[in-house]
Amino acid sequence: MKLATYQYKSDQYVGVVSNDLQTVTPYQLSKEAAQRGALSIIEMMAEGQTLPAMGQAVALKEVCLLAPIPKPRRNIFCVGKNYLDHVKEIKDSKLGEAQGSMSNLPKHPVVFSKVPETVIASRMGIDSHPAATQEMDYEAELAVVIAKKGKAISKADAMKHVWGYTIINDVSARDVQAKHVQFHIGKSFDTFCPMGPWLVSADEINEKNTKIQCWVNGELRQDGNTNQMIFDIPTVIESISAGMTLYPGDVIATGTPSGVGMGFKPPRFLKKGDSVKIQIDGIGVLENPVI
Amino acid sequence: MKLATYQYKSDQYVGVVSNDLQTVTPYQLSKEAAQRGALSIIEMMAEGQTLPAMGQAVALKEVCLLAPIPKPRRNIFCVGKNYLDHVKEIKDSKLGEAQGSMSNLPKHPVVFSKVPETVIASRMGIDSHPAATQEMDYEAELAVVIAKKGKAISKADAMKHVWGYTIINDVSARDVQAKHVQFHIGKSFDTFCPMGPWLVSADEINEKNTKIQCWVNGELRQDGNTNQMIFDIPTVIESISAGMTLYPGDVIATGTPSGVGMGFKPPRFLKKGDSVKIQIDGIGVLENPVI
Repeated sequence: MKLATYQYKSDQYVGVVSNDLQTVTPYQLSKEAAQRGALSIIEMMAEGQTLPAMGQAVALKEVCLLAPIPKPRRNIFCVGKNYLDHVKEIKDSKLGEAQGSMSNLPKHPVVFSKVPETVIASRMGIDSHPAATQEMDYEAELAVVIAKKGKAISKADAMKHVWGYTIINDVSARDVQAKHVQFHIGKSFDTFCPMGPWLVSADEINEKNTKIQCWVNGELRQDGNTNQMIFDIPTVIESISAGMTLYPGDVIATGTPSGVGMGFKPPRFLKKGDSVKIQIDGIGVLENPVI
Repeated sequence: MKLATYQYKSDQYVGVVSNDLQTVTPYQLSKEAAQRGALSIIEMMAEGQTLPAMGQAVALKEVCLLAPIPKPRRNIFCVGKNYLDHVKEIKDSKLGEAQGSMSNLPKHPVVFSKVPETVIASRMGIDSHPAATQEMDYEAELAVVIAKKGKAISKADAMKHVWGYTIINDVSARDVQAKHVQFHIGKSFDTFCPMGPWLVSADEINEKNTKIQCWVNGELRQDGNTNQMIFDIPTVIESISAGMTLYPGDVIATGTPSGVGMGFKPPRFLKKGDSVKIQIDGIGVLENPVI
């Protein structure tokens, strides 16, 4: 199941994208529920409610896709340093120097957050914030969406708590990230979380082994596979939920493979006019211009 | 103005506490607005709306105070290492060793977040999470509440964006904080953000020079003053808002003075049965048992 949030004519909808990607069929939701996007459907499922009736299918090319969860219910959880080659490229960079021992191989998942208001849809512009950063970078990531409430979730049970997946570009202001040591500020600039194109339910993707790629202006920069994660998804869920309750609709970005701009010598940061395209097999494409 | 959220008989209210602390007078809010606590009033003020009429005053001792903002609109911003003596005590601790260069004196504000669901009221129990941490610690903090939307707020303008203040206990699982390097998980356990007893508007307190004290089981552990902050409130607001829009009702905890349990040799962590009391002059008292 591909669950999309979209604008059609003057209204917002949540609907199911057909397998051939030709049409999308909306749930008949209240205006308020539709504003919350796929989060409304995930919460209904978590509560065991009957899903609303479906409306009339429309051609996918006729709609404007929005971020599947336009405003997550709280900050997005993000795992840092979760691909070995990425840990190496960061360790050798200016950011690695600023971080000291933090740039070593993590023994446990490194988790920070991005504010919900960073989320933008595919095709929307990432603000280059010229007054606040000179080192804007991309990070292609597989994001997990939580299906049901849970605390102290064991690795063995973790996958039962996963609704599905989407793509996130964990855009980062490297200079700000280094300056403030904890990553929160440098990861939370307005527009710094492109998300989409839709959610894909867990049954449709092999999250343990899927390609994750990122192009800047058509040039392949990141070419990884989720099988390279240092901490797999069950481990991440077990770590986050040890003392903290996870809720339906929570979003966890699982880290980025090597090939970020900061890893090049000299670094290749994003600039106004660039275009960042991320593809994860089994999900689709998330593409955003830098404005 | 002291703005409180409270339960009276079977309903929830938001109201103004009298100067002599004897009564509280509720705003006539919808049930839904009252559920959001003081956040509803702050948002109305931000939008320039006329505030609702007031109802009948009741004796303060008759009500049960809730956290003034029972569920913040997004994660709480927290400043780490913002008092010199606290930076020193942490540097010399096991946590300082785990953090490496991060334990040095910060050159810029160090900002992380706590999930909104950590918030509990004064008198509610802090869960000791025996399965998830053996190193639970207290941190008495002055928290700023934002009055109006803003981005790239200059130091000169910052105080115009402050609605007022409250007290926060930034409860921390030190072992988890060290393990995961970024602080987010170890700071976000359920019940880890006692907040209260109410909000105090900016005109009622000299935030640059007020006493901040913390007792554990009646023993004075922290005895600081906000005049010891490394980064003052305008600097913190300027840093956070450089690339990120701040919204009315956002909460920023401004860091803790020295005297936390981790700073003692050997450390003196919280355990079940303890009671933590924080007092900030001009605000009041926040007191919570550890359960």
